[in-house]
Amino acid sequence: MTSKLNASAEVLYQGIKGLPIVSPHGHCNPIWFAQNKAFKNPAELLVIPDHYVFRMLYSQGIPLSDLGIGSLGQGTEPREIFRIFAKNWHLFLGTPSRVWMEYVLRETFQIPTELSALTADSMYDQITEKLEQDNYRPRALFDRFNIETLATTDSALDGLSHHATIKASDWTGRVIPTFRPDGVLDPLDPSFVQNLQELEKLTQCNLGSYSGYLDAIRSRRAYFVEMGATATDHAIEVIHTEWLDDPDVLYQILKLGAGTLEDARQFYGHMLIEMAQMSVEDGLTMQIHGGSRRNTNTKLLFEFGRDMGADIPISVDWVRGLDALLNRVGHITDLKIVLFTLDESTYTRELAPMAGHWPCLRIGPPWWFHDSANGIARYFNQVVETAGYYNLAGFNDDTRAFMSIPARHDLWRRGVALHLAEQMNKGLFSHDHAEDLARLLATDLARDVYRIAD
Amino acid sequence: MTSKLNASAEVLYQGIKGLPIVSPHGHCNPIWFAQNKAFKNPAELLVIPDHYVFRMLYSQGIPLSDLGIGSLGQGTEPREIFRIFAKNWHLFLGTPSRVWMEYVLRETFQIPTELSALTADSMYDQITEKLEQDNYRPRALFDRFNIETLATTDSALDGLSHHATIKASDWTGRVIPTFRPDGVLDPLDPSFVQNLQELEKLTQCNLGSYSGYLDAIRSRRAYFVEMGATATDHAIEVIHTEWLDDPDVLYQILKLGAGTLEDARQFYGHMLIEMAQMSVEDGLTMQIHGGSRRNTNTKLLFEFGRDMGADIPISVDWVRGLDALLNRVGHITDLKIVLFTLDESTYTRELAPMAGHWPCLRIGPPWWFHDSANGIARYFNQVVETAGYYNLAGFNDDTRAFMSIPARHDLWRRGVALHLAEQMNKGLFSHDHAEDLARLLATDLARDVYRIAD
Amino acid sequence: MTSKLNASAEVLYQGIKGLPIVSPHGHCNPIWFAQNKAFKNPAELLVIPDHYVFRMLYSQGIPLSDLGIGSLGQGTEPREIFRIFAKNWHLFLGTPSRVWMEYVLRETFQIPTELSALTADSMYDQITEKLEQDNYRPRALFDRFNIETLATTDSALDGLSHHATIKASDWTGRVIPTFRPDGVLDPLDPSFVQNLQELEKLTQCNLGSYSGYLDAIRSRRAYFVEMGATATDHAIEVIHTEWLDDPDVLYQILKLGAGTLEDARQFYGHMLIEMAQMSVEDGLTMQIHGGSRRNTNTKLLFEFGRDMGADIPISVDWVRGLDALLNRVGHITDLKIVLFTLDESTYTRELAPMAGHWPCLRIGPPWWFHDSANGIARYFNQVVETAGYYNLAGFNDDTRAFMSIPARHDLWRRGVALHLAEQMNKGLFSHDHAEDLARLLATDLARDVYRIAD
Repeated sequence: MTSKLNASAEVLYQGIKGLPIVSPHGHCNPIWFAQNKAFKNPAELLVIPDHYVFRMLYSQGIPLSDLGIGSLGQGTEPREIFRIFAKNWHLFLGTPSRVWMEYVLRETFQIPTELSALTADSMYDQITEKLEQDNYRPRALFDRFNIETLATTDSALDGLSHHATIKASDWTGRVIPTFRPDGVLDPLDPSFVQNLQELEKLTQCNLGSYSGYLDAIRSRRAYFVEMGATATDHAIEVIHTEWLDDPDVLYQILKLGAGTLEDARQFYGHMLIEMAQMSVEDGLTMQIHGGSRRNTNTKLLFEFGRDMGADIPISVDWVRGLDALLNRVGHITDLKIVLFTLDESTYTRELAPMAGHWPCLRIGPPWWFHDSANGIARYFNQVVETAGYYNLAGFNDDTRAFMSIPARHDLWRRGVALHLAEQMNKGLFSHDHAEDLARLLATDLARDVYRIAD
Repeated sequence: MTSKLNASAEVLYQGIKGLPIVSPHGHCNPIWFAQNKAFKNPAELLVIPDHYVFRMLYSQGIPLSDLGIGSLGQGTEPREIFRIFAKNWHLFLGTPSRVWMEYVLRETFQIPTELSALTADSMYDQITEKLEQDNYRPRALFDRFNIETLATTDSALDGLSHHATIKASDWTGRVIPTFRPDGVLDPLDPSFVQNLQELEKLTQCNLGSYSGYLDAIRSRRAYFVEMGATATDHAIEVIHTEWLDDPDVLYQILKLGAGTLEDARQFYGHMLIEMAQMSVEDGLTMQIHGGSRRNTNTKLLFEFGRDMGADIPISVDWVRGLDALLNRVGHITDLKIVLFTLDESTYTRELAPMAGHWPCLRIGPPWWFHDSANGIARYFNQVVETAGYYNLAGFNDDTRAFMSIPARHDLWRRGVALHLAEQMNKGLFSHDHAEDLARLLATDLARDVYRIAD
Repeated sequence: MTSKLNASAEVLYQGIKGLPIVSPHGHCNPIWFAQNKAFKNPAELLVIPDHYVFRMLYSQGIPLSDLGIGSLGQGTEPREIFRIFAKNWHLFLGTPSRVWMEYVLRETFQIPTELSALTADSMYDQITEKLEQDNYRPRALFDRFNIETLATTDSALDGLSHHATIKASDWTGRVIPTFRPDGVLDPLDPSFVQNLQELEKLTQCNLGSYSGYLDAIRSRRAYFVEMGATATDHAIEVIHTEWLDDPDVLYQILKLGAGTLEDARQFYGHMLIEMAQMSVEDGLTMQIHGGSRRNTNTKLLFEFGRDMGADIPISVDWVRGLDALLNRVGHITDLKIVLFTLDESTYTRELAPMAGHWPCLRIGPPWWFHDSANGIARYFNQVVETAGYYNLAGFNDDTRAFMSIPARHDLWRRGVALHLAEQMNKGLFSHDHAEDLARLLATDLARDVYRIAD
């Protein structure tokens, strides 16, 4: 099934349905497009890498190892994994995961059957057969998905060799990196000290002083820009920024792995402002994903590692948290900072008023758990009246599940059409305005905010 | 008037309307069913015990004593109380109390008149006349209401004599106790020291040591299980859990009535984890009702006692608050913990992501102020996309107003039907799925989560 | 365009559309009605004083000085300002500002053209022409707008000379002051010490002691009452109240400009309770606008001053914040306190339960960013079920944009009609009830809560 639209929403949707996909933030692996190897099997394509999927199965008592995850899951038969998934398909009723997956099966794999314990094996075989075809290889899918630009997210220390391979290839797909420097900025990162040493080697800068450290970061940013990056990305649990008059003092302590939690917090809070200032210099759009408490299940973290579905949102204070940063650079009109929240109570209370004031701020689309039909509806309901449409940032799919990208953009576009049709219906604006806004929200805002040329 | 449904919701509603009532959490008094005496009069049945009703009257300046409440209200003429209520019936426009009361008058008492100052006396007489009939006695109503199971909530020190009487009777109605141990766990309870002494007497355990204290609690749990209990219940203002390596140290201080606020907080935080661990052992489903600040009106508390409508919600942090508990037992698939919130901002931010991850967690239905048509709609809108349906806990009426039980379950079932019809209308799933989910939400989830056999 | 209503909402709307405007809280300048001079030009009437308008333009990189704001904006050509506004009219799509402005242009100025870069000059000329006519002077508009009562907001130190002029004139329009004493209560006000000196001069009270200080405030309140005031108003960033047993100690320190931040917080928290107690004495309705962090953009504050669109909401704790105040006076039925929030998560969690209990409390209408179609819908959705209708406070336009007053009341009345039609449609009450509630919400509650005679 696909979600149904009323007549006026349908007209708006048809007008944007076929627009290219602009994907300025996500977590696809560039190796797929560099090597263009066939995806292995349905389990490794659709279940194992999708934390939306395996978290739900885990929540109902299915061990991650049964799903082939982690070293404990090594050797699990892919077909068995897919059977577990199919048998528990009812758990996803009402979730966007189900909508996305149905889209992938129906539209991308052209399989009309409904997933269930009974159809699992047949589905598995059909998908496997397709994956062996050339037109299901990563680049072919990328082209078929009509992706205009796809941004990956890459460590500041990444050599971007896969991006280089893609650039050097004769394939024209545009896959660009995004600068994610948390590992060299946040002293609480378990590898912080080691990361600085690697940063020193990589850049040949002298990290003995804070200014050398800044130079090294600038050098990495320049390399990312050279490789096509147009944005940075930061994940922060508790939003905090502050300007230190003499950051070298803390830097000297922290680069040795010493210092208190409070030192680390202050330093990271300062470095976020430095990043914003560097964005003013080099034009990289700054993204802040705030308020996700990572790895809350320590047993899972220990046995399976990070990103195992145990990242849970907490309440966020954007106003006080960004105060120091905004009062330093917030008035600069060239700067663009996109804020992503998982605390929806901040939509009307903080983000819409802030984006409706500060020239640098844009509100990111509904993120993660809220990238869903209701999540999109709540977003528009709560941000537009105060921030308008032009202080939004269009859509990000933010996914590592490559196959779901068209499904996610489709869900967004349907949500956009529904919202705009409702606004027209309320008499807020004409169909012409709605058509303009539909294109804006589907592609143009993302291109503009992330400075991605059409 | 009764709430109207659209055509597809009506079909779904008709399919679940007549299902038995499963009531796994509430505050009915077991004495009603043990003694099966006639209810006294309309005021003592419908006004005096219903804090939803008298709080609204109080908020408009009507003294509680005029409503027959507390020792100050002794001697107030029941008919006068009912007149005040009827005269102020307009205050309840738009509230679930009005919907419930109308259901009770129309369906249970078969009185078609609308309540008002003019009809007050006639209504009073008609209800009084019915209450004198045998078929309006507690057990007859219980049977007529088609209640499959009704759980009461009982102090850990309660002898459960009324439950014993019910069990020993020839009446087949299933009324089961729920273990509510806050009085012997929370050192801030004014009777904590005295409660421990009573616990010692009751169990014959030696409460001189922490392990004896645990034994005593285990013994009470076992007794409750023997008497039919399938769940525990905890009310916590500020959610906090932590594991103490040597709880005996604090225990020795606190059982003497000494210790600081922080000692009390730590100890109670530890005991919640012990309770979860005991639930792993004995299979009792654990309920946590969090974030209600009790008795905020000290004048009322002093003059009228507890539960006078002055309990007000505060914001809650489930993520950090339950961290220690979940990291100790949260991965155990046999354990069931149901979370109830009054802070709706936690639906999308915390509860849905948490229940969509932790195997032990289920989200309780909209609680208290949110047990209403809009509250139910907001709940489904906000939890389902992330938690799915199978991480919910069905419905609880959570009431001490026995007469309102069918009305409350009816309101929930209408809300379920409306929600599912909307989902179908959006194309999210078929009518068959919707029918399955309707039964799940009306009865089956509650039976499953609370381990109440069909 | 104007917002469309369904048939049953339209009937309700028609019943209240023509009722007089009761405006018990706002920020119009009384000088307009005292002097009754023509408004100067479209820019000074519609753009420069409207922080909703210029904040949005600023958020998209337009300097405030280009909009004629502040000393930096002196000399900017009004026509140029209006052109910038018209050229950026698309930024307001989806915002209430656009709805209000369209209402003003269409209804008040009778200009059917749509605003755009192309029509800017012609619009400017047409408005200018009207402004020169006598029937576009403040008093004529006031009468034409059918304003029954308009309350201004005035410093405790204000001589109210314009109000006196209005009273002494032969014009019958009712413009009343509101007592806003923050400047003489809050030691963090930059002019606090100086304000106390002025207060002393003005009242001839001896401010050497705390009791003299209280007398001085009482004296100002009495003067405001004499001049027609029926309410006070307080703006508080972080809600805090506490009762000091010996306030004179802090008073002596703070009136010298000494004392810590904590001293200031305690003192102000105490003074709010004193204000509530004085309200019990003199009958002034107390308004608390809580949770707005003022002037968050220090560069703008420095260059342009206060109220420049950089006031951003923060999360609020009404329950603990008002605890001391409510436990002192909250049970007094003659007292009326109206609470205004920008933190919508407090609607269901705090405000509705509190107003549904405390006799003194009323929930103010959606404030500021939330005075919008969706904001009004969310408000009704979230407060009515728990607080009912009779614990609300009707509508406030709270605006300094005089021209927008009819538009704002119209938007509210449409929102009321939509909400009540939906309630009828759900079967919650009859059309007769809905008609009564519509009048209540449009005018009668405001008259009642603010003690403004019909």
